[in-house]
Amino acid sequence: MALADKENSPMPPRNNRYDVTEWPHGDAAQDIGAVINDILRDVKERQQGADVEDGGRPGAVIQIPPGDYRLRTQVVIDLSFVRIEGAGHGFTSSSIRFNVPESEWAGLHELWPGGSRVMVDLVNMQSDDEASGAAFLVARTGSPRISSVEFSGFCIDGLHFTAPGPDDNVENSYVNGKTGIFVRDANDSFRVNGMGFVYLENALTIYNADALSIHDNFIAECGSCVELRGWGQASKITDNLIGAGFAGHSIYAENHGGLLITANNVFPRGSSSVSLHAVTRSSVTNNRLHSFYPGMVVLAAGSSENLVASNHFLRDHEPWTPFLGVEGRYDDAFGLVNVDGAGNSIIGNHFSEVVAASRVRPDGAAPVIVRLAAGRGNRVSDNHVVASDVDPGSQDSAFEAQVEALLSTAEARPLAVVAVRVDAASTGNTILDSGTEDEVDADLTVNAVRFTPAVRTSHSTVPGQKMVRT
Amino acid sequence: MALADKENSPMPPRNNRYDVTEWPHGDAAQDIGAVINDILRDVKERQQGADVEDGGRPGAVIQIPPGDYRLRTQVVIDLSFVRIEGAGHGFTSSSIRFNVPESEWAGLHELWPGGSRVMVDLVNMQSDDEASGAAFLVARTGSPRISSVEFSGFCIDGLHFTAPGPDDNVENSYVNGKTGIFVRDANDSFRVNGMGFVYLENALTIYNADALSIHDNFIAECGSCVELRGWGQASKITDNLIGAGFAGHSIYAENHGGLLITANNVFPRGSSSVSLHAVTRSSVTNNRLHSFYPGMVVLAAGSSENLVASNHFLRDHEPWTPFLGVEGRYDDAFGLVNVDGAGNSIIGNHFSEVVAASRVRPDGAAPVIVRLAAGRGNRVSDNHVVASDVDPGSQDSAFEAQVEALLSTAEARPLAVVAVRVDAASTGNTILDSGTEDEVDADLTVNAVRFTPAVRTSHSTVPGQKMVRT
Amino acid sequence: MALADKENSPMPPRNNRYDVTEWPHGDAAQDIGAVINDILRDVKERQQGADVEDGGRPGAVIQIPPGDYRLRTQVVIDLSFVRIEGAGHGFTSSSIRFNVPESEWAGLHELWPGGSRVMVDLVNMQSDDEASGAAFLVARTGSPRISSVEFSGFCIDGLHFTAPGPDDNVENSYVNGKTGIFVRDANDSFRVNGMGFVYLENALTIYNADALSIHDNFIAECGSCVELRGWGQASKITDNLIGAGFAGHSIYAENHGGLLITANNVFPRGSSSVSLHAVTRSSVTNNRLHSFYPGMVVLAAGSSENLVASNHFLRDHEPWTPFLGVEGRYDDAFGLVNVDGAGNSIIGNHFSEVVAASRVRPDGAAPVIVRLAAGRGNRVSDNHVVASDVDPGSQDSAFEAQVEALLSTAEARPLAVVAVRVDAASTGNTILDSGTEDEVDADLTVNAVRFTPAVRTSHSTVPGQKMVRT
Repeated sequence: MALADKENSPMPPRNNRYDVTEWPHGDAAQDIGAVINDILRDVKERQQGADVEDGGRPGAVIQIPPGDYRLRTQVVIDLSFVRIEGAGHGFTSSSIRFNVPESEWAGLHELWPGGSRVMVDLVNMQSDDEASGAAFLVARTGSPRISSVEFSGFCIDGLHFTAPGPDDNVENSYVNGKTGIFVRDANDSFRVNGMGFVYLENALTIYNADALSIHDNFIAECGSCVELRGWGQASKITDNLIGAGFAGHSIYAENHGGLLITANNVFPRGSSSVSLHAVTRSSVTNNRLHSFYPGMVVLAAGSSENLVASNHFLRDHEPWTPFLGVEGRYDDAFGLVNVDGAGNSIIGNHFSEVVAASRVRPDGAAPVIVRLAAGRGNRVSDNHVVASDVDPGSQDSAFEAQVEALLSTAEARPLAVVAVRVDAASTGNTILDSGTEDEVDADLTVNAVRFTPAVRTSHSTVPGQKMVRT
Repeated sequence: MALADKENSPMPPRNNRYDVTEWPHGDAAQDIGAVINDILRDVKERQQGADVEDGGRPGAVIQIPPGDYRLRTQVVIDLSFVRIEGAGHGFTSSSIRFNVPESEWAGLHELWPGGSRVMVDLVNMQSDDEASGAAFLVARTGSPRISSVEFSGFCIDGLHFTAPGPDDNVENSYVNGKTGIFVRDANDSFRVNGMGFVYLENALTIYNADALSIHDNFIAECGSCVELRGWGQASKITDNLIGAGFAGHSIYAENHGGLLITANNVFPRGSSSVSLHAVTRSSVTNNRLHSFYPGMVVLAAGSSENLVASNHFLRDHEPWTPFLGVEGRYDDAFGLVNVDGAGNSIIGNHFSEVVAASRVRPDGAAPVIVRLAAGRGNRVSDNHVVASDVDPGSQDSAFEAQVEALLSTAEARPLAVVAVRVDAASTGNTILDSGTEDEVDADLTVNAVRFTPAVRTSHSTVPGQKMVRT
Repeated sequence: MALADKENSPMPPRNNRYDVTEWPHGDAAQDIGAVINDILRDVKERQQGADVEDGGRPGAVIQIPPGDYRLRTQVVIDLSFVRIEGAGHGFTSSSIRFNVPESEWAGLHELWPGGSRVMVDLVNMQSDDEASGAAFLVARTGSPRISSVEFSGFCIDGLHFTAPGPDDNVENSYVNGKTGIFVRDANDSFRVNGMGFVYLENALTIYNADALSIHDNFIAECGSCVELRGWGQASKITDNLIGAGFAGHSIYAENHGGLLITANNVFPRGSSSVSLHAVTRSSVTNNRLHSFYPGMVVLAAGSSENLVASNHFLRDHEPWTPFLGVEGRYDDAFGLVNVDGAGNSIIGNHFSEVVAASRVRPDGAAPVIVRLAAGRGNRVSDNHVVASDVDPGSQDSAFEAQVEALLSTAEARPLAVVAVRVDAASTGNTILDSGTEDEVDADLTVNAVRFTPAVRTSHSTVPGQKMVRT
């Protein structure tokens, strides 16, 4: 932008604060992507020196006031210290809305998410290039790694799902090829805070993260929510509300060390709640996890020396009509927790397994809670399993169905479970106080086991009464 | 507002960002409620279409710069995606100030809270209508539920308490009929972040919440702090500083499932720290809880399958002169934790009971730490109780008194406690490593108990030395 | 400022929102300290009455847009309810940059941190007055305590370290006499949120804190990160990314009660991760802690009745070339956790000790994990130790070295450790399930011990295979 141009600008960039609605080039309502790219071009043009008086490239904040902004052009971020900041995470349930009969739409207060809302409507998506479907692409190679890019307080909405889906409704498919934020290259000290993500096939896909913070976001009704790919270290995923689609991941990480996943409320219907692939020395602690399928926490591919502690696990059945009949990836023998790795600690968790005995798979088997499938030297101690056989109801209203299912504990029957199963491929484990003698299935010659003391009496098995296994 | 009017507006609403100090109608200093209501009216007038180019009702942000704003008119929010945002939570201790002799007021640096401060001074409060005393009322029926209303970074100050109170001071009563935020109707994805609440009878009262986040707030010197009423699911109360009045709740929830209460620092003097009524499959984990009374965590009315883990409990005596003599709702037999429900897990908590033996009630009884009063199948494992008999001091200075009491561990004497008591109405429980043989009071024929191994020697009972029960 | 002056101001202070780049006096780029002090003077001038219509001193917000701002004059804050707010925490690794050969600097995308960046370049630092090296000094005596000062979203950069340091590089010394924020006097309800701190000898030094919140910050490459001195209560240090220099503290507190340290990801190379001096009834729970030295969590000077639970500890060796050879303060007999105090609870933690047996000190000794050095009545239960003897590698790239070290678990050999050692000066402790019979070193006549059951077979000791102690 020429100087003359700047003088006519309604927002003279005398500091590094930009507002997409005041930028003189482009129309943020029609294509916020083009506007942000032009602002980033301006920042780079103005911040050319990398070492001017001990500084030179402080970056910028780009503000998005509440409003509906279509994004037709992908934003490409290739400079550090950029904060993109809205004033409203804007979530509303598109899933509920798209399962309301069209005849009732006129009576709805609103049909779309809101807040500072970026509507992903890319014109150049290519099915063979995942990154091309991202609203925001972060891409920069060389040194140093791109640092301190921040996304804060706005909404990224994929608008529609488009593939065949449950209940013959494409909007239930969680598939549209769109990603909210895609970070392609190694990065440091990024922040994603207070954001809303909805109706994206992938909300956040981040490669090669160091000291990343994903904190206090609302990430729901997306195919997958958080995927940390490549490798990474010393990051945190904390205090988020998260819930993926039936085929995707709520939280996934691979080849990460020192990852802290805590204080998240992860609700259904992700195929897993937390799935770790070759992740080491990381924590999954103090989360509330709720799933409609087995395989809630998966420590796969040699994931080792991780701590899974103080979590609340609830596994029950899908209660909402449109998704009835959708099944998870694994059967009930897989375990709510499945471990292929060494030296992990599974300590002090609560498990509620609330299922219809008739729907347990394989037929006639007892559901497994913790399964040590391969590896060695894991510790499973002081876990409490409460298992009930229920007659699951269903409802046309998503939230009434869920609340009702959550709150009903009165009419359950006892359900036998395998609290801990240790496969032959996993040895040298220590299992303490995590199941009574008839609830632990392990080779006692190659594992150390102390059974939970059983309650002596049979009071608890009076038919028709609620019973909780101890 | 007519178009001509708008053209004269100092803040042309070309985007959806409003500032209460710049709105041309009303005077925010004299009645911020009327100003915000007028802004909301303007938002609705401008956002009439519910489905305009895939959007239409993105909502707005209403900014409150630091300042003193009287609220005479209740704000009524009936549209989604509204963020009300200040720039300062503004807490200061009104409780301390109102117990300073008036003669010293002239020497005080400031007398009132600050920041972006809403002073609740409603003209139409009705004693028979709790909602009428709310500064902010959220009310909208129909579909969808009102979503993504956000309160961020400002202060709501009730100014004065008004009923008879301790030390003959109405300002110590925690009663004035005022509520900060009252959400009447079912809601989704609300956020309350970075707020300050002070001198309100109720800070936050929220009915029928789904995926609510109450995060990183300062909620103190209010009668009750957080009350989640009606029913709800999948919400979180995280990382707050909270402390209610002697008769109220710091955190209360009823009929909630999947609630995550974590990382809160809950200080006195709430009648309870966390009180759950018919709450299921929820977590109270990793909090720091401090109370002057028994009944710190109450799982009532069949609350079931909850996890209470990794919390630090401290119960001691009120040390501040004006409140000396105020007693809690329950006696020491009630327990610091009291459970009426099934399948709960109480795992890995630390309890410090620091009281004068002479003040334990009923007289001569040992205080109870965990009491299973009714229900079945609960798990109490790996809890550590440290109990001391002290001579409580008192101080005229609130914070010096508290700090001194907190830090003094040197001159305590051993105090016998009942670490776990199981009533006849509660059966089938498993109690592990949570009390030595002489500290657990349970029917071993209907509960499974493993005592904590006792230290063999009696070194620890030398009179006059600090002793900690193990 | 006279009224006439104000009328000419580009930012009429009709509300209490200031912007350092728009303030008519001074030049924020050349001395942001002088500008902020002048703004604070203006606030005080305008807010003279302490009790005007139930208010009078609401404070102000001072905004710092992204940019490079030199600070030559110390900011002195002596009024409550001031928020200083930026739009970018701006961290990048100066440590990596200053270890890049100068010949490669031209190829770097950027050389300096960014965001809303305060460059500490004080002209009046005095070596005998620590406070004189602070960019922001909070100082006010009298009543009430200064309240609700908030620091949010900006970067404080000390620019350079200046003392002799490892690899003959002063920039590796972590010493420059500079402090980011120094709070000298008793304070209440302060907040430090979303900040970045880099290359300061001390990031945050806070005396006499009550209800302080240090939340969601990035505090790294500073000599010491968080020091809570004097005394204090009811504060929280939560959800931060923190990593101090080799001689300093990542998190230090003294004479605090009711402190909640949770959900932090504390990375190397602090001399300790969490060091508590005479701290009582506090929590260190649910953190991820990583260190290159023993003494990760130190409960010193009679620290009592604290809860250390659900943490993940990793101790391994420094892998980055410039710092090879730097040793910690303690040898391996000190323990990863060292306790001098009574009634503490160490429950449900995971410990990974990953060291070269040849580098363990004293020579030939087994490293100690938890050491009860003095005190009585502590509880150590349900902890899991995984110990490996490795051949540590090193790398010229800081993050590649760390990630590689973190992820490598395949080629380790078993390493014998002392899981728990109880010195004669500590008695009456209870140690449960925290080490097998050959891993616990305690006098069984004055402590209660239950050993972790050992795995019976010797499969796990096959040479050349990964082995994990159970």
